[in-house]
Amino acid sequence: MPVPAKKIAVVLAGCGVFDGSEIHEAACTLLNIADQGATYQCFAPNIQQSSTINHNTRMPEPDEFRNVLTEAARIARGQIQSLDKFNPDQFDAVIFPGGQGVAKNLCDFALKGADCKVNADVEQALVSAYEKKIPIGAVCIAPALVARVLGHHGITVTIGNDQKTALEIEKTGARHQNCEAKNICADHLHKIVSTPAYMLASSISEVNEGIRKLVAEVLSLCRE
Amino acid sequence: MPVPAKKIAVVLAGCGVFDGSEIHEAACTLLNIADQGATYQCFAPNIQQSSTINHNTRMPEPDEFRNVLTEAARIARGQIQSLDKFNPDQFDAVIFPGGQGVAKNLCDFALKGADCKVNADVEQALVSAYEKKIPIGAVCIAPALVARVLGHHGITVTIGNDQKTALEIEKTGARHQNCEAKNICADHLHKIVSTPAYMLASSISEVNEGIRKLVAEVLSLCRE
Repeated sequence: MPVPAKKIAVVLAGCGVFDGSEIHEAACTLLNIADQGATYQCFAPNIQQSSTINHNTRMPEPDEFRNVLTEAARIARGQIQSLDKFNPDQFDAVIFPGGQGVAKNLCDFALKGADCKVNADVEQALVSAYEKKIPIGAVCIAPALVARVLGHHGITVTIGNDQKTALEIEKTGARHQNCEAKNICADHLHKIVSTPAYMLASSISEVNEGIRKLVAEVLSLCRE
Repeated sequence: MPVPAKKIAVVLAGCGVFDGSEIHEAACTLLNIADQGATYQCFAPNIQQSSTINHNTRMPEPDEFRNVLTEAARIARGQIQSLDKFNPDQFDAVIFPGGQGVAKNLCDFALKGADCKVNADVEQALVSAYEKKIPIGAVCIAPALVARVLGHHGITVTIGNDQKTALEIEKTGARHQNCEAKNICADHLHKIVSTPAYMLASSISEVNEGIRKLVAEVLSLCRE
């Protein structure tokens, strides 16, 4: 009997580094999942973005209101589901690419740090994945979100080497481990894998290398 | 003396498969350029998109007006220039990823076929690149745009095997060659390389494989 392909849920936060999911990280996540023989289903919460940033001028567009699910659908080529439909029994793992949308839409870590509020659907997805013991991958700033929800279990994550962000993460009860852009931090006990990506990377090639290792580790934890 | 890295201009058409640049194709283009030791600079025309498509419902948003350069900046992480600043003397090659924005923003091939109008900056970029003999890469539907501008030179391109689109392309004087998703069509005489990507591909892995070969061929033509 052939082994069925592993199914990975990918949770997006919009479309663009300054107000949504970082596009290179999201695309590299999908690419490495497919390259390594697994399949993916994208999800995003059906909520308004906290802000819209003009990515050319990098200035806010205060009169422009975009929806996280609608914008994330651009990365997913329309193949996306609202995050409230996520059922951990239907997936072997879940991965969160980075981008400022993770810290501004999925939670408000960018404003509040360790005391941030987490969107209810995001919290439910993380708690249920953890309880079902399916591995969680977190890229770039996403480990801060994971720490906010699961830090009290004593998980270990990385966001690279930014000490201010690392200190906020440790306030949640999580441990922070410094890590190079091309490498991963693998917490086998809690089945949580993280990689710094553009928190540290100087090129899309470094981002892809870190995410390739993250996907491989996540898939290897599925099999245990 | 070390050989300086080749510099590739990447021309974007917005951000999203249904009204802009196809995000996977654009990201894979940037990834393979970096992986193969070259550098990139993204460009896009500073014009209004022909439409905004809600990528979740796939319906037009008739009251929503977006700018091609501003949206393309999401793919480029803010590092983008207006296409009227493109100078072929500063680049070793130019690559156009696909997506419906190529056929709706850079030209109106999606509406008019072989008789379409091409944005003046896009036409100038293609004509000047061709005259300076720097190679041109075209992904997915972008070969139709290239054919509209340069077809009278008798160039050969591929958009996969869609016969209706191929016939429109051949009306420009270009020749169309059927090609598999993971492969490329290389016109060495005119230094034009194309790959079908999502015109045919069934996965992001196939897209990436075709684009990896396209970037390798474009770089090899730079060196001749």
